Amino acid sequence: MATNLHHGHEESHLKSSDFIKDVVIGMSDGLTVPFALAAGLSGAVGSSSIIVIAGIAEIAAGSIAMGLGGYLSGKTEQDHYSSEVKREHHEVENLREKEIEETKEFFANIGLSEEIQEKATEEIARDKDRWVDFMMKYELGLDKPDPRRATKAALNIGISYVVGGIIPLSPYFFIPVSSEALKYSVVATLACLFIFGYFKSRITGVNAIWGAIRVTLIGAVAAAAAFGVAKIFEH
Amino acid sequence: MATNLHHGHEESHLKSSDFIKDVVIGMSDGLTVPFALAAGLSGAVGSSSIIVIAGIAEIAAGSIAMGLGGYLSGKTEQDHYSSEVKREHHEVENLREKEIEETKEFFANIGLSEEIQEKATEEIARDKDRWVDFMMKYELGLDKPDPRRATKAALNIGISYVVGGIIPLSPYFFIPVSSEALKYSVVATLACLFIFGYFKSRITGVNAIWGAIRVTLIGAVAAAAAFGVAKIFEH
Repeated sequence: MATNLHHGHEESHLKSSDFIKDVVIGMSDGLTVPFALAAGLSGAVGSSSIIVIAGIAEIAAGSIAMGLGGYLSGKTEQDHYSSEVKREHHEVENLREKEIEETKEFFANIGLSEEIQEKATEEIARDKDRWVDFMMKYELGLDKPDPRRATKAALNIGISYVVGGIIPLSPYFFIPVSSEALKYSVVATLACLFIFGYFKSRITGVNAIWGAIRVTLIGAVAAAAAFGVAKIFEH
Repeated sequence: MATNLHHGHEESHLKSSDFIKDVVIGMSDGLTVPFALAAGLSGAVGSSSIIVIAGIAEIAAGSIAMGLGGYLSGKTEQDHYSSEVKREHHEVENLREKEIEETKEFFANIGLSEEIQEKATEEIARDKDRWVDFMMKYELGLDKPDPRRATKAALNIGISYVVGGIIPLSPYFFIPVSSEALKYSVVATLACLFIFGYFKSRITGVNAIWGAIRVTLIGAVAAAAAFGVAKIFEH
């Protein structure tokens, strides 16, 4: 709506960018879960090679599961939208009185007088397509989804997950002793989580330093827990 | 809004239940990713014990990362809402003309005449709190978040992930040869994914059998990819 005309509201505008949302979803799990898994295995397994295999398997599994999950939820959203549009068109044609009641109810809820409720409803009901659009958006709260959204979401999320996951895993490619590789992985990943958290927070309009610390802490806690749990099960 | 009064719209009402949404988020990744990881490792590692350790580390890492991620996004939503409410209150008090313009613009966009735009705006602007509520919801598209939402989301998502992840992993606890354990894991997990997909689809109002097949396929594809990738890196 008028969001993009609203000075100082750039954050909320940017926030709604689907591409950025996808990258944030994929990258935050991609940086965190393979990192924590590799750290956890480093507590139980001495050789890096097994950790590389587990890490690669996790990145393949996670990126496909999240990417296809994004695809599926995009498709579901589209199906849901089309079936609701059909229903609203049907109701506008065949249950006109009921739709008029619901439209009046909307105007009553936002605080308009009986007189203006009547008049506004009458004006909206003149153009059936516009009326259906109005009901979709404000009665049901549904925005028209982009038809290519599902495919885009799958690719954005999946690729971001792979990019995020390669970072914590890369030291294990080059350093054969897992406890050594872990040190580099921790430093590199926490630094990337901090930078990622910083930009993510700026985009969503939250305090950037505090947001960066929160994101970094999540990664550190998940890795420490995985390390501890793997140590317990090793014995 | 009127969604729950709307006959036949129970699906969209149920769909918005936050608890169910959380369980679906946690359980779909919990069933899929540890399953695919264990399957992938079974292609490269003969002994179940290493797969149990990796699986447990992944479940700890994944549940904490997703749970805390849910907490963080709940908190961010709250912070964003409060800062926008403050801004709208400030604008209603100090930039009245601009807010009146924006309110008129909303009514113009939904298709009302100049006359009704004026009158409706005048009526809404009489009660400042109501006016702010209106701007939050329909200009910015923000709903008031539940203050305990962040904590609830963290627990619901995290626990669902653990419950989902235990299922594919459990055969590896009892069967020491990983390729043997994999068979039981595949059967148990695909069956659970099918049942889970069935109920998830019924809740979101999509065709249930087709939805169940889609969810099961995602898990199978992710597991097969992880298995293949781990086999390649083993050599």
